[in-house]
Amino acid sequence: MAARKLILDLDTGIDDTLAIAYALGSADEVDLIGITGTYGNVTVRRGVRNSLAVLHLFGRDDVPVYPGVDHPLAYDPAVNGPWEPSAGSVAVHAPNGVGGATIPDSPRASEPDGSAVDFIIDAARTYGENLVIVPTGAMTTMATVLKTAPDIRDSGARITLMGGALTVPGNVSPGAEANISQDPEAADYLFRCGARTTMIGLDVTHQTALTRKGTAVWRALGTPAGDFLADMTDYYIDFYLAHQPEIGGCGLHDPLAVAAALDPMLVTTLGVNLKVDLDGAFRGRTIGDRARLADPDKHTQVALGVDVPEFLERFMTRITALAAK
Amino acid sequence: MAARKLILDLDTGIDDTLAIAYALGSADEVDLIGITGTYGNVTVRRGVRNSLAVLHLFGRDDVPVYPGVDHPLAYDPAVNGPWEPSAGSVAVHAPNGVGGATIPDSPRASEPDGSAVDFIIDAARTYGENLVIVPTGAMTTMATVLKTAPDIRDSGARITLMGGALTVPGNVSPGAEANISQDPEAADYLFRCGARTTMIGLDVTHQTALTRKGTAVWRALGTPAGDFLADMTDYYIDFYLAHQPEIGGCGLHDPLAVAAALDPMLVTTLGVNLKVDLDGAFRGRTIGDRARLADPDKHTQVALGVDVPEFLERFMTRITALAAK
Repeated sequence: MAARKLILDLDTGIDDTLAIAYALGSADEVDLIGITGTYGNVTVRRGVRNSLAVLHLFGRDDVPVYPGVDHPLAYDPAVNGPWEPSAGSVAVHAPNGVGGATIPDSPRASEPDGSAVDFIIDAARTYGENLVIVPTGAMTTMATVLKTAPDIRDSGARITLMGGALTVPGNVSPGAEANISQDPEAADYLFRCGARTTMIGLDVTHQTALTRKGTAVWRALGTPAGDFLADMTDYYIDFYLAHQPEIGGCGLHDPLAVAAALDPMLVTTLGVNLKVDLDGAFRGRTIGDRARLADPDKHTQVALGVDVPEFLERFMTRITALAAK
Repeated sequence: MAARKLILDLDTGIDDTLAIAYALGSADEVDLIGITGTYGNVTVRRGVRNSLAVLHLFGRDDVPVYPGVDHPLAYDPAVNGPWEPSAGSVAVHAPNGVGGATIPDSPRASEPDGSAVDFIIDAARTYGENLVIVPTGAMTTMATVLKTAPDIRDSGARITLMGGALTVPGNVSPGAEANISQDPEAADYLFRCGARTTMIGLDVTHQTALTRKGTAVWRALGTPAGDFLADMTDYYIDFYLAHQPEIGGCGLHDPLAVAAALDPMLVTTLGVNLKVDLDGAFRGRTIGDRARLADPDKHTQVALGVDVPEFLERFMTRITALAAK
């Protein structure tokens, strides 16, 4: 068991599934102690179902899955009904969240509803700087953790999130990246509460493209895991080729966040004190907080460069080895 | 006479005046071969008047002043009447453009109306890589130069512009910086036409603050130039303290662009292929051009860091020495 501990906070999702695979394929570097469930690509319920199913497919029923907060801070389910993913999210990830690919339910149940917040707080207090948390969906659970237990921001636990766009346009509006747009108030709290974060945003994830050459390697394995990953990811690649052909494949958003969490040298970063715009057309944009521009203490390291060949090599090697079993 | 040549393309303006002073105070490093007149803070006519007056105040009637294009590419004066500065620009720079400070007219006239474009083209062809051009207002004249004479983009002449905001909000809207907002189509052409540019935007200029401690040094000189610079800049500082107090003084936008043009080591940059948003609420925003994200050849170096103490030292030393005469 590795000394370093990892929590993935996922809205599982196609690239979230690839993030799980990358983490499990890095077991000699890091110990995935739990997956927490947020929403965005899918509901918490479906994301948790998918996380359990993916863990089962990879023979890792030992990793617990904790459902988290299931709607934005500013959203009232009593008034508006249960939160549902946008039509855009459903188009990107398909209604089942994994590109329509077939994956059996896990025989296992999740931990109790809402248990994610306490799990993360306990883990941060237990493991401190040996823990890294990787949120890749709505930041609501992470913001709730930091509001509930302000000591976590000084625990030494690192937060490496997938979300935002600083030097490139957003992907759900000219300003907003999808994960941040799910709950701008939560993301704004995360960036401005004093916690230390590393942002893996579209600035770098749109530089990483996987093509059908990659998925063909998985399909050639002739394993259930290889087939599933190939089917799921081909759907994602086709969506990207139809809607963002300039990327040349699908962006590897969430797995890049895991890779950078395990090895920060994969990315080059700029220190920025960020805020999230909350109003009007700019709602959901990540941008420098002018009020803290002069503060030399920068709370977020924003990834602006990435060693693409090295990342793609690790991505293919680790996930292929995992899926070959 | 220095081997390196400089053209300032100004909408003179308070900080444009400080840019002239910085350039004249750097005469051992660079030869200011001309000022071209654009619009933005003021009309071309008033900016040219101010440039001539400032040159006269500093005893530099040898520097010619060439009026440039006087309205945005997408603006038709035959329909809309002569272009006029916005109420915001008038508030920042005062109706006379120099903070209401008194400065006599120059006894000298400008070069012919519209002569800026040909002057810049001829200079770029003559001096090539020994020329640096510093546009600090609407980019219309620069875009017209590059449209009229596409060879200029390969002439070796450098373009170091003040404008834009990549990692911080704009100053005329959440997305747009003032100079870019004057003519977004022209700026978009400049960034995407293949020319090499360095962008000195709000990312760095808002890190440079001049306070009344600085202007008090000029006032203590007891010279007409010192009094004028102090009066003019105090107006600017007061405007900033009232509207953007977090900067802690006035931003030294245009002089920082001149300083970085003369010594690129003053700033740290990120290579980005930029575009300018042209539509809706984002009109005037400078942002990465997703279509050229994968292109390893980056056409713009965007300044994200600046050696503030070193710049402020040079700024005060050079301008104070000039104003002491």
